[in-house]
Amino acid sequence: MQNVVLILSGGMDSTTLLYYLLAQGYNVPAVISFDYGQRHIKELECAKNTVRFINSLMKLDIKHHILNVPFGQLATKSALTAKNVDVPEGHYASDNMRATVVPSRNLIFLSIASALAISEDAVLAIGVHAGDHTIYRDCRPEFMQQVTQTIKLGNWGAENFDILTPFLHIDKEGIAITGKHAANQLGIAVVDIYARTWTCYKGLEKACGKCGSCVERLEAFEKAGFPDPIQYAP
Amino acid sequence: MQNVVLILSGGMDSTTLLYYLLAQGYNVPAVISFDYGQRHIKELECAKNTVRFINSLMKLDIKHHILNVPFGQLATKSALTAKNVDVPEGHYASDNMRATVVPSRNLIFLSIASALAISEDAVLAIGVHAGDHTIYRDCRPEFMQQVTQTIKLGNWGAENFDILTPFLHIDKEGIAITGKHAANQLGIAVVDIYARTWTCYKGLEKACGKCGSCVERLEAFEKAGFPDPIQYAP
Repeated sequence: MQNVVLILSGGMDSTTLLYYLLAQGYNVPAVISFDYGQRHIKELECAKNTVRFINSLMKLDIKHHILNVPFGQLATKSALTAKNVDVPEGHYASDNMRATVVPSRNLIFLSIASALAISEDAVLAIGVHAGDHTIYRDCRPEFMQQVTQTIKLGNWGAENFDILTPFLHIDKEGIAITGKHAANQLGIAVVDIYARTWTCYKGLEKACGKCGSCVERLEAFEKAGFPDPIQYAP
Repeated sequence: MQNVVLILSGGMDSTTLLYYLLAQGYNVPAVISFDYGQRHIKELECAKNTVRFINSLMKLDIKHHILNVPFGQLATKSALTAKNVDVPEGHYASDNMRATVVPSRNLIFLSIASALAISEDAVLAIGVHAGDHTIYRDCRPEFMQQVTQTIKLGNWGAENFDILTPFLHIDKEGIAITGKHAANQLGIAVVDIYARTWTCYKGLEKACGKCGSCVERLEAFEKAGFPDPIQYAP
């Protein structure tokens, strides 16, 4: 089976993607996470927790690479990294969420991850989905195609390189349902998947339930018809 | 005048580029260097030294960002980062220099630098030259065009983003001559430029004079008709 290296943020999209790929029978030699000074550093803890859980449960040896990318130093205007810019509230897919854009973020992540994937003789996978397209230009289908071509053009022996984006045309509800199916196929309780994910953009003890990311996550679970196992602030 | 952010390795190509852009009248708010576990870490010291020298001499305030990218962790097979792989000797433009390829290196550098450039409302500049094309796919003209398009596609408000590559079609001899002209324009001794550059791929006290990079550098100075001010091992 094909090798695939995955970008795992610790959010519900990429975590679902990992379980989905394993349920599909892919071989996952390594996953990669980025510490980029995000406020929601709990994401990273969730990513680590997920890899440990899967390795232990499925007797796998997935390597977890965590790379530091100091966006705060590079991108001083994004609410995700700058301490003096507030995280906007309201729905995720609205204009004010533009404040959370970090320039070239996915290009940086995909570029770095491609070095690992090429070294591991693997393709890449990333959990971008339809809900991301409006505000994040670097989550769009045409951008994913463009980056794939760029990586192939820039490397020797990368003719078979590809970026898998199975969630590109589905929304977060579809992702939750995909996670439920993958859990069934792997014989895991779905609660064990999503209890180890973090979505809130604010770096508080419990998820705020009010930022764009939380609103979208809560809607997704409600529509998918099963409860979100993480705790929200009252 | 236009803002430009430069990728400065500390080698002679990117260092010449910095002086060339200043001589052309560009405004350089920041330069960026990468610590990627290269054996030739002296390059970075040269880059720092060059920025300090220019800021002091020309009364500028160019910010110097140094980012860590642990290629050793990602790319285990390259002679530039893996301790157990020998740096090949002989001419730079030959097959055995393929061992020095790090997957997606320039894409990673350009992606990260683009975040800084976009934040600084600047274009990017990189010192790739004609001699790089044979072995480094990510130094070719078509790759530079492709990356430029990719960065524009992936960011909001990046319509005017560009990557300047003034050395793309000249060789290292042409670069040395360009450096001499820039030195004259700026009223600097050319020796003060190149004494602060490092090219050797081996991480020794003096340049080895034998690796592909040294061989190419020595040829360039000889053809350009002025002496290389750095010291070589006997």
